[in-house]
Amino acid sequence: MENSRPLILISNDDGITAPGIAALIDVAKQLGDVIVVAPDKPQSAMGHAITINQPIRITEVDIHAGVKAYQCTGTPVDCVKIAIDKLLPRKPDLMVSGVNHGSNSSINVIYSGTMSAAVEASIDGMKAIGFSLCDYSWNANFEVVKPYIKQIMSSVLANDLPYGTLLNVNLPVPEDGQIKGIKICRQAQAKWKESFDQRKDPFGRDYYWMTGNFVNMDHGQDTDEWALKHDYVSVVPTMFDLTDHQRIAQLNQWGLDEFSV
Amino acid sequence: MENSRPLILISNDDGITAPGIAALIDVAKQLGDVIVVAPDKPQSAMGHAITINQPIRITEVDIHAGVKAYQCTGTPVDCVKIAIDKLLPRKPDLMVSGVNHGSNSSINVIYSGTMSAAVEASIDGMKAIGFSLCDYSWNANFEVVKPYIKQIMSSVLANDLPYGTLLNVNLPVPEDGQIKGIKICRQAQAKWKESFDQRKDPFGRDYYWMTGNFVNMDHGQDTDEWALKHDYVSVVPTMFDLTDHQRIAQLNQWGLDEFSV
Repeated sequence: MENSRPLILISNDDGITAPGIAALIDVAKQLGDVIVVAPDKPQSAMGHAITINQPIRITEVDIHAGVKAYQCTGTPVDCVKIAIDKLLPRKPDLMVSGVNHGSNSSINVIYSGTMSAAVEASIDGMKAIGFSLCDYSWNANFEVVKPYIKQIMSSVLANDLPYGTLLNVNLPVPEDGQIKGIKICRQAQAKWKESFDQRKDPFGRDYYWMTGNFVNMDHGQDTDEWALKHDYVSVVPTMFDLTDHQRIAQLNQWGLDEFSV
Repeated sequence: MENSRPLILISNDDGITAPGIAALIDVAKQLGDVIVVAPDKPQSAMGHAITINQPIRITEVDIHAGVKAYQCTGTPVDCVKIAIDKLLPRKPDLMVSGVNHGSNSSINVIYSGTMSAAVEASIDGMKAIGFSLCDYSWNANFEVVKPYIKQIMSSVLANDLPYGTLLNVNLPVPEDGQIKGIKICRQAQAKWKESFDQRKDPFGRDYYWMTGNFVNMDHGQDTDEWALKHDYVSVVPTMFDLTDHQRIAQLNQWGLDEFSV
């Protein structure tokens, strides 16, 4: 009866050797059959990039015990696309991405390769979740958050999640280690204020490192930033229809429909 | 009184030498003072990627007569970020991206470096528009669409566009050359069906080229795909709050808030 178990596709953006994806595999194995297709190297901040100007390679690897796994030379989105076309035995019941080493809350959803992999799966019609832990270190503690990951994955498998919606889940790292619970949230209005670090190379030419400060402009108590700051797991229903539907009526008053050449 | 003219920041993803950005500069110069910060090479399909693992260089170039222009080694989003931090004399009144060689309608907004540059400007608080012509060729005819670009830029300069909304404008290439007008639209529900082209390298190893077919699943007559197919310019109000607000109430019925470890 192995085929009655859910099929779960896993990817990430930190690369197939990251501890975060190992944690996600551990949890997924308890819930279903797992197939991993993940980048062969870190691909953070790749957003929804795809590889169109060079070929992609995939290699089956045996690094996660008992789990079929492939590393891919492409971006996180490439991994999902090639999994769909070449590697999956059937349509997965769930796709999970992560666990990212570092937050993908608020505006970070836009830059995140982790979330883009999940978005791509969702576009293709899979239920999908991106998981991120608010700790950038390679040796972050994923044990504490595993029960929350399992609960959220189980809920998504058990409930309806209509086409067009996926989940962006961020996991807090409370100072006292005590996570307070799970909250459904909206994406906080926030941005990065750039501050490029300007240096001179040995040949006297300028170069720049991107750095920046996170600015939360949102004082709402229903946001992912609020939840994480107060030691809750944040769950944001996320969509890839970027239309600002409410603005259509306003734009129709600009008279652009009357313009002719 | 030069300072009373609007300041217009321009970028793209096809690179600073692309004919599309030259067309956009031509139009923008009629409306304001222009500063160009664009990639030094093609960066299509980069999505919202940013460069965090290597430094970025910028070089002032004199290729667009009378216009201050910089080429940047980074992604389209990098271009906007470094413009904000290092190159702009003041906050621009408008940021325009493109004109992209090829459509960025419907789901393509997600993969587009052109749109991501505009999204980044919008996140920073600029009015922003991404322009794309439905012709992938390098020698596409941009003359026909210039009046529409000018009208839409003028409208955005003259009207309110609240924080959080930018415009995704796609320009059709009618068979008879006759554009019918401008329509405010929503993003069509569509996707790419992947079809990787599998080959063997001279050493007997497999490699894959990403190809795919565009699938429009949306029969609505209020979509960008419908407008373009019927020879209208499509204008989609686009946002970077990806929250599926309508879904929050539904998710709250899953009982995740009652879960504890």
